Order: sequence, then structure tokens, then C-alpha cells
Amino acid sequence: MTEMLSAAALAQAVRAGHLSPADIAERCAETIRAREDEVRAFASLDLDGLLAAARKTGPGGVPLAKTVLAGLPVGVKDILDTVDFPTERGSKLYAGYRPATDAAIVRMTARAGGLVAGKTVTTEFAFMQPSATRNPRRTTHSPGGSSAGSAAAVAAGMLPITIGTQTGGSIIRPASYCGVTGYKPSFKLLPVLGLKPFSWSLDTIGLFGAHVADIAFAAGALTGRDFALDGEIAAPRIALVKTPRAHLAAEDAHAALESAAHAAARAGAHVTAIDLPEAVEAGDGAQAVVQGFEAALAFADEWDRHRDQLSPTLSTYLEGAARITPEQYDAARRVARRSRHALADLFADYDTLLTFSVTGEAPEGLGSTGSPAFNRLWTLSGAPCVNVVGLTGATGLPIGVQVVGRFGRDRQALEVAQFLERAIAAN
Amino acid sequence: MTEMLSAAALAQAVRAGHLSPADIAERCAETIRAREDEVRAFASLDLDGLLAAARKTGPGGVPLAKTVLAGLPVGVKDILDTVDFPTERGSKLYAGYRPATDAAIVRMTARAGGLVAGKTVTTEFAFMQPSATRNPRRTTHSPGGSSAGSAAAVAAGMLPITIGTQTGGSIIRPASYCGVTGYKPSFKLLPVLGLKPFSWSLDTIGLFGAHVADIAFAAGALTGRDFALDGEIAAPRIALVKTPRAHLAAEDAHAALESAAHAAARAGAHVTAIDLPEAVEAGDGAQAVVQGFEAALAFADEWDRHRDQLSPTLSTYLEGAARITPEQYDAARRVARRSRHALADLFADYDTLLTFSVTGEAPEGLGSTGSPAFNRLWTLSGAPCVNVVGLTGATGLPIGVQVVGRFGRDRQALEVAQFLERAIAAN
Repeated sequence: MTEMLSAAALAQAVRAGHLSPADIAERCAETIRAREDEVRAFASLDLDGLLAAARKTGPGGVPLAKTVLAGLPVGVKDILDTVDFPTERGSKLYAGYRPATDAAIVRMTARAGGLVAGKTVTTEFAFMQPSATRNPRRTTHSPGGSSAGSAAAVAAGMLPITIGTQTGGSIIRPASYCGVTGYKPSFKLLPVLGLKPFSWSLDTIGLFGAHVADIAFAAGALTGRDFALDGEIAAPRIALVKTPRAHLAAEDAHAALESAAHAAARAGAHVTAIDLPEAVEAGDGAQAVVQGFEAALAFADEWDRHRDQLSPTLSTYLEGAARITPEQYDAARRVARRSRHALADLFADYDTLLTFSVTGEAPEGLGSTGSPAFNRLWTLSGAPCVNVVGLTGATGLPIGVQVVGRFGRDRQALEVAQFLERAIAAN
Repeated sequence: MTEMLSAAALAQAVRAGHLSPADIAERCAETIRAREDEVRAFASLDLDGLLAAARKTGPGGVPLAKTVLAGLPVGVKDILDTVDFPTERGSKLYAGYRPATDAAIVRMTARAGGLVAGKTVTTEFAFMQPSATRNPRRTTHSPGGSSAGSAAAVAAGMLPITIGTQTGGSIIRPASYCGVTGYKPSFKLLPVLGLKPFSWSLDTIGLFGAHVADIAFAAGALTGRDFALDGEIAAPRIALVKTPRAHLAAEDAHAALESAAHAAARAGAHVTAIDLPEAVEAGDGAQAVVQGFEAALAFADEWDRHRDQLSPTLSTYLEGAARITPEQYDAARRVARRSRHALADLFADYDTLLTFSVTGEAPEGLGSTGSPAFNRLWTLSGAPCVNVVGLTGATGLPIGVQVVGRFGRDRQALEVAQFLERAIAAN
């Protein structure tokens, strides 16, 4: 097992002159060469280009002071448009496809001085059909989906930062399975322009990194916002939420959640177990309706012209989705709006929620990407979510726990996630 | 002056067997051939293709029962992706560009049995640089922007229905200048997938048609929602709103608004002049900040790689927009949210607002597309807006008035717009 790379620490080392961007690029390239055959995290890759660009960053080239990301290599999920790499979206329909422009987040990465090393594997159009990527923690197991390659590349120590997306549970779930920190920001904090849409009310771009400090560093660098974590929250008020879907969580997922809650309490947090108000919870059912109705329109072209080239998994899904009526969709959007408002009210009493990231350890085999049962509601809510690492399940694979923050209070969510991460590590 | 084509009446004539889709296509083709040299409404056009497709709709071809749009020809603003036509976005940067997929609204048009006749002229990336399109009501005058070709094609009787977009005032303004009905629906009622983004919080797809009944027919056909107007609202409660920007409106724009208000009152409406609550009005300033910050990211690729191929108008705008900080943007989004909530509160007492569509008649010459001063706030609000025709200005050119409805209550907004349209006509 290779160690994960800390983006924050690497950037600091570059600034301090202890490492050059080229040193880091070479280390990444070495790990990728060593493990890629087995892990299959990349849809496309340009290590020579990465090394060349890294050599141009720093003394004699692009001034480091201008690159907040300090020339760190970044992986971009292949559902996002890139000019310099094919954008195949996990579908043979887009084999070799070259978009005319970069996705906004790709330009933001470049403007922040990050170097795109390659495209990370996505499941077909970021849906449920498993990809060929394997879990670096145990390669007989699934890395989850749909941001499979992005989670795996960080877990394998190939890259310090990768970009993923979540419409159901596609960031938090693979983060938990692969034992990395995953961050789904507040809805639209990171612009989705140049993302192949699945559901415009839900599609959210997020980040993977080793630990919370790395995510906060990258989010701050990409957006120009102040995400510096100063440990301000000494005694966070945390609501422990199991949801009516708790029976779907395996025993070891329950144990992980309890263990995280105890660790937090021991570290000084006020942890209160609560039931979600019915109005909040109703959003869980609404998510499926919103996602389905919008997907049927988002894939209208592929469905009308190239149905035979979609996987049976996606094809069957879209066939059902097409039966959702505008009235059902409009009703689901009203439920969603009420759910968001009721959730906002809840945050009067709590800084964050703490809940399951997943139903258990990564599934064995590559036949399933696992269940997004504990993610859908939070994607619909638009609230910032962080998968916190440090705990393991019955067979020793990682099981993360999920911090859910208030919409627009991403820094606070990251603060509490870091508090919890440290509490778990200290336990 | 050719008469405008009523989409609702044409569709009814097709169903009754009085006209065939081919008859209608031929009539459109004839008008287009006669006036296009002068009006320049189209960026690309396929009249042979239209006629061929129309001949295949009806007896012996696609059953009419399956085509809610009854094989009507439709024009699509060239800011929307189409597989069958070049998608040039009003920019030489995209000369000859062929997207891989149709925009969702284009697929929705096809699924509803509409036939895309061609792409209508957009200003460069739907911004302020004037296009070559002329106002069919007086070709020495501007048709407005950015949906110049879509408004002009309907005004010239070339097409019964066209699709446009609005980020500032790009539907209501050209509709007013050209004397056609323009409809900006509730935000995201028509999905923006396949629209080249300018500002993801503001970009809204809408429709142009001859009268309110035509718009309601097309909106119902495209979305599968019930937009049938049954004249339910006998005595609408209308708030007459001049806004603190009233001084920007010319005398004849004031006269048109007063005249519309009197006509409505005479027809039985309860018309009350009100001042907008400050919280609502604050959204007007926020719109510019939101639009600018998002545009700087939406055009990141064009700016970083092809700046020299942007017009000075757009280039200068983006240069300024890039200086908006995330903090200013976040603050503007908070103002926007409060503005939307305060506007929703206002609708407890009124069915719709009635306000200026524009500052006056269409500008003379093609040097300016006119001012969106009376549109920005309503785009930000996400509320449905309708430009109502029937009034004219000092020189005899059209001046519309604007009905603003409650978010999500599009049918009600259209009902009141039709009530007002009839009241103005009866006056």
C-alpha cells in the first residue's frame, strides 16, 4: 500500500523550497506507473506532459507566487470536458470525443496553477454501470462509483487532488470505500459548466484528497475563497442522524458511526441523536423523481439517436424515467424545496449533522458500485458533505462517516469534519 | 408588412384537416424567401429539409395524433446546440461548429412534433454586441438583442414559434421592439442543457409567438404541462410597478404602461400602483454582479485561449467581470435570495405585476440592442414574464408591457397576460 499524498503538505513543501513541482510530478508518475495496471484509475493520461509542465513551474518558469496550487498534479473525472484530453464520459458513444472548450473547473484548476495529469475513470455517464477501476485498498473490491477513478487515484497515492461529481452518491460513496476524504460542496459552489449533465438540479462537482486539510486547501485555491481551517470550532454541536434507512447499514457501518460519535463527544463535541423531521426526510424519495425526470431530458439526444449504444443498466433506467410525468416532477420539486427549508431550520440548533457515508465496506467484486442510500437526500439538499476517514469495517476495509453542513457554510462543515477526523485518529 | 402566424390557430387548422403541415411549411418558406434578405433573421436555414419533413407529417407519414405541435416549423436561437445545423453562437470562434448532441429543448421540440426550420441569429454569445438582424416593423431599426433573429422571424411572419434565451433582457426586450409576444418562463421550466452558458443562475430559455394563446399552446406542447388558458381569471389583482428606474423610460413607454393599466382596470382587473419593497428592488443591482462573476467563469476557456477573437464589447465586459470577488458574488447571491423571497411574499396580495418591458421604442440604427434596465431584476427573480403586445410609441413602433407572475405559476401569468392583451385590443 502506497501512502496517500497530502496536497496541503506538498504545496507547503514547494513554497518552502523543499520540493519542486517536478519532484512531485515525478513521484506521482512513479506511483501511477507502478499501480495503474492493477488499479485502472485513468481513462487517459499524459505523464510526459505533466512532467514537462511541472518543470516549467517555479524558478525560471511560471512564478510559484502566481500558482496557489503550487503546480500540484490534479486528476479530472472523465465526465468533465477537456481540450487536452479525450472526454469519453465512460461511454463508447463518445470514444475519442474532443470538446471545443475546457470545463470551467478545469480552467479554474489551470488558473490556480494546478496541472491536469489525466482523466480519471467515470462509470458510463456517471451512472451505476460499474467501471473497470479497482479499489486500491483491496483490488478484488469495488472502488464505488461513479467517481471511481478519482477516488482510487487518491487512495493509491497516485495524485494528491482529484475532481469528481455527485448526483446521487458518487463522491461520498467511493470516498468511503477507498478510504479517502471526499467533499461534495454546497450546490453550485464549483460551477458545472462543461459537465455532461445527468440531472441539473443535482449534479455537483466536488473534490477528493487525503485528509480534510487537503480538501480545504484545494477548495480555497480553486475558488479564491477563504477555506483556511483555524480550528475555530472547539465544541461543535453535532446532530447524530441515522435516518429511517438505518436498517440498510451493515453492523460495521453502525459501529463506525457510533465510534465516530463517541470520539467526537470525547473530544468535546455536543453530540445529540435526533430523528430527522419528516419534511426533511421526504426529500429522499423526491431525489429519485427529480433525477429521473431530468435524466430523461438530459439524455434525450442519446436516447432518440443512439439507444443501442447505452448499457442495459442506463437504458432500463431511462426507460422508466421517461414515464415520470411533469406533475410528479413538479410535486417532487415542491417536496425538495420544503425539505431544504426544514433542513436549514434544523441548523439553528446544530453546526453539522453526522450520519452514515455508506451502507458498509466496499462490495466484493466489480459487479456493483454499491448503494447511494445514505447520499441521495444530502445531494438533493444541496448541503456540503464530507466523508471523514479513519475507521474500518469487519474485514478491515475503510468505512467513512459523513458530516453534513448547512448550505453555504462549507468552511464550517470542513472545520467540523477536521475536528472529527482528529478525534477519530486520537481515539 | 406580413401578418404574424398564430401557432395555436395553425395547429387547430391542421387537426381539423383544413391545412397540412406542408401547406404551413410552404407558407413559411415563401415569407422567408421574400423577406430574409432584408431582415436577416437566420444564422442557418434548411427550407428544403423543412418542406421534406413537413410532407412526412400527417396522412401516410408521422401520425398527427403523435405530434402535439402538429408539424409546425420552429426557429431555434443559434446559442443552442443542434446536430443538424451549425451552431455558431454569434461568434467567429465557433464558425461551422457542429455539436455532438441537440440541446434538450431541441429534442423536446422534435418529440412534440415540431420541425426545426433553422437557427435564428443571436448576438455574439447572447451578449450586447449588435447582430446584423433588422427589425421587421421598420428595418432601419434594431430588433433588440440578444434573441434578435427569434423575435424578428415571428414579427415578419416567417415562423409561428421561435425559441430564445434571456440572461438580462434578451427575450422581453426584442419581443417589445418587434411587437411579438415573448415569454420568459419560470427559471428552469425549460431545461438549458445544450445552451452555451453565460450565467448559470440567470440563463433562461423562452419562447416567441404572435399572441399569448400561441405561447401557451407551444409551452404546453413542449413541456407536456397543462397550459390551456380557460379565461379563469375574470378580475385579476394586478400591481402596477414602475420601479426606481422609471426615469429611464421614455414618455411613450410611460404612456403605454398607463394605457395598459387603464385597459386592464376597465376590463375588470383590480389595478393598484405600488412601490416595490426595498428587498425586492435590491435584486436589480445583484443581477449585474451575479451575471458578471459567472460570465467570467463561463467564458474562461475563450478568455484564456482566444481573447483576440472576442468583440471589444464582450472582451471589455469580461475584463471588468473578472475583478468581481467571490465575496462580492456571495453577497449578491444573498441579496438575490432575499429579493426572491420578498417578491414571493408580494404575490400574497397580487396575481401578477404589470411593469415596463423596455425603456421605449426600438432604437434607430443597428448600433445598439437597447437597454435591459426593466428586465434584469425579473430575470434574477426567476419569475415568469410575458411581453404583451398591442400598444405603440411616438413613431408608431411597438411598445410592449410586461406581466410578471409568481415563480412556478406560469399558467396564471399567461392567463393574466391574455386578459391584458384582450383588454388592450378592446380599448
